[in-house]
Amino acid sequence: MPNSNDPHLVSWVESAQDPATDFPIQNLPFGVFRRAGTAEMPRVGVAIGDQILDLPACLGEGLLTDVAEGPAGLACATPSLNALLALGRPHWQLVRLSVSRVLRAGGSPSRYDRERNARLLVPQAEAELFLPAEIGDYTDFYASVHHATNVGRLFRPDQPLLPNYKWVPIGYHGRASSLVPSGTPVRRPLGQRRPPNDEVPSFGPTRSLDYEVELGALVGPGNPLGARVRIDEAEARLFGLVLVNDWSARDVQAWEYQPLGPFLAKSFATTVSPWVVTLDALDPFRIAAAPRPAGDPPPLPHLHSVIDQARGGFDVTVEAWLRTARMREGGVGAVRLSRGSFGDMYWTLAQLLTHHASNGCNLRPGDLLASGTISGPDPRSRGCLLELTTRGAEPLALPSGETRAFLEDGDEVVLRAYCEREGATRIGFGECRGVVLPSERSTPAGGQPAVR
Amino acid sequence: MPNSNDPHLVSWVESAQDPATDFPIQNLPFGVFRRAGTAEMPRVGVAIGDQILDLPACLGEGLLTDVAEGPAGLACATPSLNALLALGRPHWQLVRLSVSRVLRAGGSPSRYDRERNARLLVPQAEAELFLPAEIGDYTDFYASVHHATNVGRLFRPDQPLLPNYKWVPIGYHGRASSLVPSGTPVRRPLGQRRPPNDEVPSFGPTRSLDYEVELGALVGPGNPLGARVRIDEAEARLFGLVLVNDWSARDVQAWEYQPLGPFLAKSFATTVSPWVVTLDALDPFRIAAAPRPAGDPPPLPHLHSVIDQARGGFDVTVEAWLRTARMREGGVGAVRLSRGSFGDMYWTLAQLLTHHASNGCNLRPGDLLASGTISGPDPRSRGCLLELTTRGAEPLALPSGETRAFLEDGDEVVLRAYCEREGATRIGFGECRGVVLPSERSTPAGGQPAVR
Repeated sequence: MPNSNDPHLVSWVESAQDPATDFPIQNLPFGVFRRAGTAEMPRVGVAIGDQILDLPACLGEGLLTDVAEGPAGLACATPSLNALLALGRPHWQLVRLSVSRVLRAGGSPSRYDRERNARLLVPQAEAELFLPAEIGDYTDFYASVHHATNVGRLFRPDQPLLPNYKWVPIGYHGRASSLVPSGTPVRRPLGQRRPPNDEVPSFGPTRSLDYEVELGALVGPGNPLGARVRIDEAEARLFGLVLVNDWSARDVQAWEYQPLGPFLAKSFATTVSPWVVTLDALDPFRIAAAPRPAGDPPPLPHLHSVIDQARGGFDVTVEAWLRTARMREGGVGAVRLSRGSFGDMYWTLAQLLTHHASNGCNLRPGDLLASGTISGPDPRSRGCLLELTTRGAEPLALPSGETRAFLEDGDEVVLRAYCEREGATRIGFGECRGVVLPSERSTPAGGQPAVR
Repeated sequence: MPNSNDPHLVSWVESAQDPATDFPIQNLPFGVFRRAGTAEMPRVGVAIGDQILDLPACLGEGLLTDVAEGPAGLACATPSLNALLALGRPHWQLVRLSVSRVLRAGGSPSRYDRERNARLLVPQAEAELFLPAEIGDYTDFYASVHHATNVGRLFRPDQPLLPNYKWVPIGYHGRASSLVPSGTPVRRPLGQRRPPNDEVPSFGPTRSLDYEVELGALVGPGNPLGARVRIDEAEARLFGLVLVNDWSARDVQAWEYQPLGPFLAKSFATTVSPWVVTLDALDPFRIAAAPRPAGDPPPLPHLHSVIDQARGGFDVTVEAWLRTARMREGGVGAVRLSRGSFGDMYWTLAQLLTHHASNGCNLRPGDLLASGTISGPDPRSRGCLLELTTRGAEPLALPSGETRAFLEDGDEVVLRAYCEREGATRIGFGECRGVVLPSERSTPAGGQPAVR
């Protein structure tokens, strides 16, 4: 199949030729959208420059002929990516190639072509974007050894990294219902927490609201209950990656997490970016898996393969940006808080998936496997405030003159990710954005919290 | 609304008059079924004696007139309970009353009535039963202080109960995809575990497969993201209860659970009983909430109300039964391993739900809130083998001459639950059943586990 990442390809969509765009023709991420302010049925689209290619419109115009009559064409006419995810990589590659052909510049377009092309596009600025799939189960891993060590040091100075970490790809089940698309405001949650110097806990707005920079993989074809997945076959089951902000209430988390793990500290909102960057688009940005540090154990056999090691990781740069209310009012742009790389993960995506299914757990199309906070060895790569501020003890100084130990009301967090490499066209993930709203006031003493 | 729990009511379904039946006319639990061996669309039914009242058939016969034209009638014609769950208690009560009227004996039935009645029933023995709802999120609590203390003692002898237990209704997100209906065989999972005397972990079939006796509540109308639920309004949002067997691989759990909680130790299968016993049916079996032991803190204000305390708990007796392969071969009946009461929980259902939504987490119709293992103060009430055998150190002697530290291949676990009280008609939950299948063999050294 021809390579749709060919850096010489050019699209007739002019904004896709902007060197700064996240969405050149080499990317072609999939999402679900509708025209903002309408009640249209959501539909599948592909981001190109500052536009969205409307796949059902393409089918209506007689385009995408390679897939139109097959299951992939039917899947592109549904209101989520789940049907397409279920079909598997050969179908994904065929759709990608067909979309690439629709968007390629070639010769001089006729007036008919130009008019038709205009009917295929919706400006991103005029679109409402949804979660790209119905996510049945959301799993959050803990795949950055740097994050695990930094966090562990704060809570267990004598034993930052637990004995299982280098053997088990640690993860937990997250809350699926509170996954929200980028742009959804996040209300500061109330919760139960016991401040270090208090004898008893109290209930109220979290005082240590945090973000976490993560990437998440969307599962394609699932495995039936009881079936495992060989590590060499695992990566092909993943459709692509999105940005994930796993908002966290650190005070609630510290008080509740023993012995069954994070629960209400995370389940108030998890923000997902709308555009799924396919592993095919990421293929030029693979990097060798870093050799494990001397003394680290090799992965157990079911989590190890020469092929997986050779495939390596993906060198996706991830960034967290912050803009406070005062910065917005003063016209000050967002400030970057961190920049790390997905290449610094301790486990590959294939290892995460194979581990997840190693007990026979069934994964379903649309399931989200998030990485956990992406932090690297460099202190400036730390992917959450808990790490950046040493649990609030060393607040960050912002260009507005403010400081931040944790997030304040009105703060907007924007996650970004992109891939750059000599000889390849830069591709990006768009944004994963959310602004913090104040918590609802509890009613006065003796009263009960309100149901809205 | 007339009381459908009236002990004087009698049904024309003869098997519903058997004093030993779980499903007299006072119960009327809801489920989803079809005739076994057919490809019929699943449909909503109500268990009555050894029969199922087919609600779409009732509507087709012009019965259930009170609800036929409304949303509850439409909901009963869908292939899951989710639509009915979303409607809320007044609709549930109306359907319950309408069903009760269809099933009541009265006068001498005409031949026409008898013929019609036969068309409304499907024998349970000829039905395939499904999960009663599409369960979007499954939460597992830890609401038995006796279970938490017993388990904690095994893992942390110096501090069995963690400091948060009596303040926070501890819970975690379970895996929704691997919820299976009663009767589904459970394959022994493989997993990573490090036996106490081994230096490094290994991957293989769990050596300490366990069951857990639980009850789970199905959520009715949900709350939007960001909205909390007052404790006085929480219970009315719960439709009813099912039995839940939260199968657990204890060796995997012990090795993986720090710091993010149970994951693959539980996600290979969770069995759910098919019949949802409504809170309306359980109403006659309320018991006063036990006063908290002296020295225990009162619940924080948002988790406390006089009304919730007055409503109390539900005196549901829960039992675990075991039948090994040798017992089946020898014609020996199942042996009861434990008998406990749901009335022994430390937290009420309302407290669990209010806590769950206290951070604004949205609950959706069909979500399952399970209790965690139900154990009481009596050693014979311990709801899992981990507790009953002191982590395998004190195996149980079975009537077949066998012993059990944990479950062996071929063992069948059957959970039962029922309510009995002087002056009320006994009601039951039916069974929650599963047999342990041997794990698939790993391929020999150097190979990879197979994908089926």
